[in-house]
Amino acid sequence: MRSMIVRSPILLSMLIASAAAADEGMWLLSNPPTATLRSKYNFDPTPAWLEHLQKATVRIGGGTGSLVSADGLILTNHHVGSDQIYNLSTPDRDLLKTGFIARTRDQELKCRDLEIKLLWSIEDVTDKVNAAADPSLSVAKAFEARRKAMTRIEQESKDATGLDSEIVTLYKGGRYHLYRYRRYTDVRLVMAPEQSAAFFGGDVDNFEFPRFNLDCCFFRVYENDKPLKAEHYLRVSTEGSHDGELLLVAGHPGHTQRLITADHLRFLRDVEMPDSLRRLWRREAQMNVFCSRSPEHARIGHDALLGIENGRKARTGIYAGLLDPAVMTAREQADARLKAVAATQPALADGNPWERLVTARKLYGAFFQRHRALGGGLGSTLFGMAVTVVRLSEELPKPSPDRLREYRDSELESVYLGLYSPSPIYEALEIEALTSGLSLLAETLGADDPAVVRALDGRPPAARAEQLVKGCTLKNIETRKRLVKEGKKAVEASPDPMIRLAITMDPESRTLRKRFEDEIEGVERDAYARIAAVQFALYGESLYPDATGTLRLAFGQVKGYEHDGTTIPPYTTIAGWFERYKERGPQPPFEIPKSWLNRRDRIRLDTPFNFVFTADIIGGNSGSPVVNARGEVAGLIFDGNIQSLVWDIAYDDRQGRAVAVDIRAIIEALRSVYDLGFLADELTRR
Amino acid sequence: MRSMIVRSPILLSMLIASAAAADEGMWLLSNPPTATLRSKYNFDPTPAWLEHLQKATVRIGGGTGSLVSADGLILTNHHVGSDQIYNLSTPDRDLLKTGFIARTRDQELKCRDLEIKLLWSIEDVTDKVNAAADPSLSVAKAFEARRKAMTRIEQESKDATGLDSEIVTLYKGGRYHLYRYRRYTDVRLVMAPEQSAAFFGGDVDNFEFPRFNLDCCFFRVYENDKPLKAEHYLRVSTEGSHDGELLLVAGHPGHTQRLITADHLRFLRDVEMPDSLRRLWRREAQMNVFCSRSPEHARIGHDALLGIENGRKARTGIYAGLLDPAVMTAREQADARLKAVAATQPALADGNPWERLVTARKLYGAFFQRHRALGGGLGSTLFGMAVTVVRLSEELPKPSPDRLREYRDSELESVYLGLYSPSPIYEALEIEALTSGLSLLAETLGADDPAVVRALDGRPPAARAEQLVKGCTLKNIETRKRLVKEGKKAVEASPDPMIRLAITMDPESRTLRKRFEDEIEGVERDAYARIAAVQFALYGESLYPDATGTLRLAFGQVKGYEHDGTTIPPYTTIAGWFERYKERGPQPPFEIPKSWLNRRDRIRLDTPFNFVFTADIIGGNSGSPVVNARGEVAGLIFDGNIQSLVWDIAYDDRQGRAVAVDIRAIIEALRSVYDLGFLADELTRR
Repeated sequence: MRSMIVRSPILLSMLIASAAAADEGMWLLSNPPTATLRSKYNFDPTPAWLEHLQKATVRIGGGTGSLVSADGLILTNHHVGSDQIYNLSTPDRDLLKTGFIARTRDQELKCRDLEIKLLWSIEDVTDKVNAAADPSLSVAKAFEARRKAMTRIEQESKDATGLDSEIVTLYKGGRYHLYRYRRYTDVRLVMAPEQSAAFFGGDVDNFEFPRFNLDCCFFRVYENDKPLKAEHYLRVSTEGSHDGELLLVAGHPGHTQRLITADHLRFLRDVEMPDSLRRLWRREAQMNVFCSRSPEHARIGHDALLGIENGRKARTGIYAGLLDPAVMTAREQADARLKAVAATQPALADGNPWERLVTARKLYGAFFQRHRALGGGLGSTLFGMAVTVVRLSEELPKPSPDRLREYRDSELESVYLGLYSPSPIYEALEIEALTSGLSLLAETLGADDPAVVRALDGRPPAARAEQLVKGCTLKNIETRKRLVKEGKKAVEASPDPMIRLAITMDPESRTLRKRFEDEIEGVERDAYARIAAVQFALYGESLYPDATGTLRLAFGQVKGYEHDGTTIPPYTTIAGWFERYKERGPQPPFEIPKSWLNRRDRIRLDTPFNFVFTADIIGGNSGSPVVNARGEVAGLIFDGNIQSLVWDIAYDDRQGRAVAVDIRAIIEALRSVYDLGFLADELTRR
Repeated sequence: MRSMIVRSPILLSMLIASAAAADEGMWLLSNPPTATLRSKYNFDPTPAWLEHLQKATVRIGGGTGSLVSADGLILTNHHVGSDQIYNLSTPDRDLLKTGFIARTRDQELKCRDLEIKLLWSIEDVTDKVNAAADPSLSVAKAFEARRKAMTRIEQESKDATGLDSEIVTLYKGGRYHLYRYRRYTDVRLVMAPEQSAAFFGGDVDNFEFPRFNLDCCFFRVYENDKPLKAEHYLRVSTEGSHDGELLLVAGHPGHTQRLITADHLRFLRDVEMPDSLRRLWRREAQMNVFCSRSPEHARIGHDALLGIENGRKARTGIYAGLLDPAVMTAREQADARLKAVAATQPALADGNPWERLVTARKLYGAFFQRHRALGGGLGSTLFGMAVTVVRLSEELPKPSPDRLREYRDSELESVYLGLYSPSPIYEALEIEALTSGLSLLAETLGADDPAVVRALDGRPPAARAEQLVKGCTLKNIETRKRLVKEGKKAVEASPDPMIRLAITMDPESRTLRKRFEDEIEGVERDAYARIAAVQFALYGESLYPDATGTLRLAFGQVKGYEHDGTTIPPYTTIAGWFERYKERGPQPPFEIPKSWLNRRDRIRLDTPFNFVFTADIIGGNSGSPVVNARGEVAGLIFDGNIQSLVWDIAYDDRQGRAVAVDIRAIIEALRSVYDLGFLADELTRR
């Protein structure tokens, strides 16, 4: 691991502005890396090419998908769709286990709470947002003023265009962009393979390569009860890709921390990340126990467990990177470079923003645990709903810009979609989650803490959780609707123990949030905006911002790598999958489903299955279309290898790789395994 | 859970000195609960009866066993012997999986580092120990003086009697007893069933009842290469026990916390226990990952994983009890009662020991994390050996009473037995454990902490662990012996990276230990001795001391209990096992081994398998003989139910039960399943 970081990638991308060296960057669609693409790959995407890719890429379920037919067909990862597949399952029909196939459009299964967003336009509103904050205001007041201005701008945009409008904060405050989305909520499940095929190797092989995962599924977007007539959709390449080929990725990388200061990185390393890991290990052990109780417990708990395992493995990799002294040294050098510029141009930095950040983080350290413990819910869906109901009763009477940001008018449709979802709520899982959440509160704050005493109300966690969940009336959707409709008085009069708990706990949660926003986030937004000004002065606009969960463009080439003295080739094949199965199967997670075993003789075993390439991706890119220079889908991002985990803080392409499902494997599976020739035809039709 | 504790058990045992109400207590063999046994059960054990039980009971592998034949046959739990069974396994011969049977004495497998101790005599040396501490000394100096006196007394006893001599601190300092042991180190494995039979249900059913575990195995003690001619051994009852029968238990309960103050209990609840749980969850998740890597990883990691799961489940139960406000209230009332007595007899308490305890714990809170992080090794066997080698080189030149207590002369044989053990050391497991240990250091102290910087030496944990383990020469037993023999100079000159690390880390570890002993342990020993004086004044000698890992007597009756509105009968049968298997098997941990499935028709299915009774036991009692009033073995403790976990802090028999293997199931298994009629005959011979 250590040697991986000696050549500092951050420095590299900053020093070599021509950027010919590395396939680094999660680029704004409004500011693509055209110079690099031209110089390194002799590729010159036109604005139309970019617009087409943008308008065929969707946000879905915390990840990414793409429109791949004129009839609104969406291709994404199985693990992006698995929440919905889980919610559509029943004790007798476990779609994660069996997979799902709609052989006619009538059979497509309508999702209960899935929304899809399509980025339609981008506008730089930095000046408008900043204009709201008079220089005479305190940092906290300025932060609040900007936030209100953002809500106003979003609302005006929505009123004017009818599009969902959302301001994205880039460079931690250096830029504000207004993104306008088309939004769809009638989305239906078309096809999902068995989870054993989609996630063969489970946690053992997760983030590893070579890999053999058919991590895909298909949805279809409907509008007015008819398949969406997509203005833009991606054509699929039947030839796939080849070693060395340039491929591009459009997707929604969620979160990176490449531009934060060394001190901030240290906070991440010594405070946040250990705490996150502790929570993940804890939940992993607990959910393993839960799932082992019975087959039905396994069914309702397994998908959550996979998510926890995934988070744990990802963070383990990031934490290992953070413990590499070379990473910290590189970041300190990057800081020093910026500070040197700031010293010569004091107007840019407006004092010493680095110092202000140090002070803010030190301050945050003093209430970090409490903020995390009381600000993050208790892990229970029902408690989450209770908090939402309580907060809606507080917020709805206020004007939209004065509300907590997630309850502004433009967000309400999404809030209601979640709150009124008919997705199943499992009592056993709720009790288990809440027991854990209540115990965590006591473990963190101590059992005599007033917040813990209030939460437990004189009972040990398990007994209290049982009382809360069994007595909770919010399992009924109509009750949720009624309480929201009737508002504050009804909520305050509700005897529902979960509502009572939310009412009890919410004030301190809000206080801590306010404190965080005023004393930490506001200060940091301001300081990072100053640092961004220095960065722009030094590097120009060729600096891509840290990931923000919004649409970005990445690029790279198909390329194997060296590991432990051997060369790992970039492609695996279906034949390789059967070999791995022979080696480790048939016990889980190394099962190949019967559908494949039965058809083995018909399958073209030399079909490329998964492949690696150098594009700069991260969590949130899951399901991203991987397209060739002609804009055709050659694959589907579903993972990064273990050496790419450190990309959260620094890109490095010596071993780090994005991992994709090859489109040829998907087509082969549809035709030779699942008898879905018509779906393959829909994909490949010209 | 909550309703379990309303009737405070601690108060109960203290208020009702006649003790007719509860089967509570882990009694000293030198102070048995004769009054209760007589009044409640009309049973009057003679001194000879007690001596016989004492001298047929052994300390073995952190648990308990009993001599059950004239030829030195030892009966204990499979999970007590599993360390040895693991060490005797190889990649091709996994004795945990397959079980082991010696069909002749020649085939018995000699254990590599197992010692067995038999308590031969007990002497109260309280006055002698206390006499060493002049009242003019500071608390820390007095603590040290007493400790040196203990080593001297032990040594004198060993010189005079030839017996291993160990002073046990009872009532946290209220009494000191000198225990003299016979010690045996030629111990051979005779028979172990498959782990799937011994631990059927695994973590899922652990601490649960009804239960179906053949948790037993047999060793044989040798002396001069011949089976030990045991002066005392227990006869086995072929009739077993019956509902309502009085049964007694001799064993080595490890640790309870029933007499500590409410404030101390709060420290346990809010500091120690959450930290312990976090470590266990962490290791559980990590070891699960390790075991999933390959079948060989599973083989070498599985037994450790079981230990971690067991610790996690036990502590989860204790923690839930600690979060019960009724438990804390009861403890506060107990404190108040003692304080009231102390107020009237100030000479007893010598000031306010409760206040001194509060101060000490507050002080400890400030360096608890650091003490635990740096005082507890790094989870690696090789690092542990390196520390032992380094410390021996420091300690051996000193006179025995001046050394760290675990290196006093009387302990050296045990130290060498462990250090020079030929038990296998698995490189993969060592690297994994050390990676985890090094990372934990960083997670706890922060990566810039000087101790962490020294430990990691510029590498991320995994790379550092690999370097340390691969370069470590201590894998060779001769190297360990040579370094110990050549002493400090050789150790200091050693280039072995693990030795270097131990040399680097040991000074702070020793400093923290010294600080803990001087500022916390010494103060607490003194304060609790004062409190004990008050307790004796109030309750007389009818108060049993908290468990200390030394021999105790418990008693209780066979008795079912109510749970969730149903009555759980006290016995299960082999037929019930096959039913549970049908319900949950055949996948692990619900497998019945082939040996049993093949013999199903021959087995008497109505044979009682496991049973519950009310005796007061805790971890360390594993493998304890359960005897009837005639002193015959009716069963073998192997667990407590989940409601008994709280016994760590307070006994309660409404639902809490000890769980035992019925001796009839063991005999049936030997005769009908394993074709070991000759072993059954050896057990039942009169």
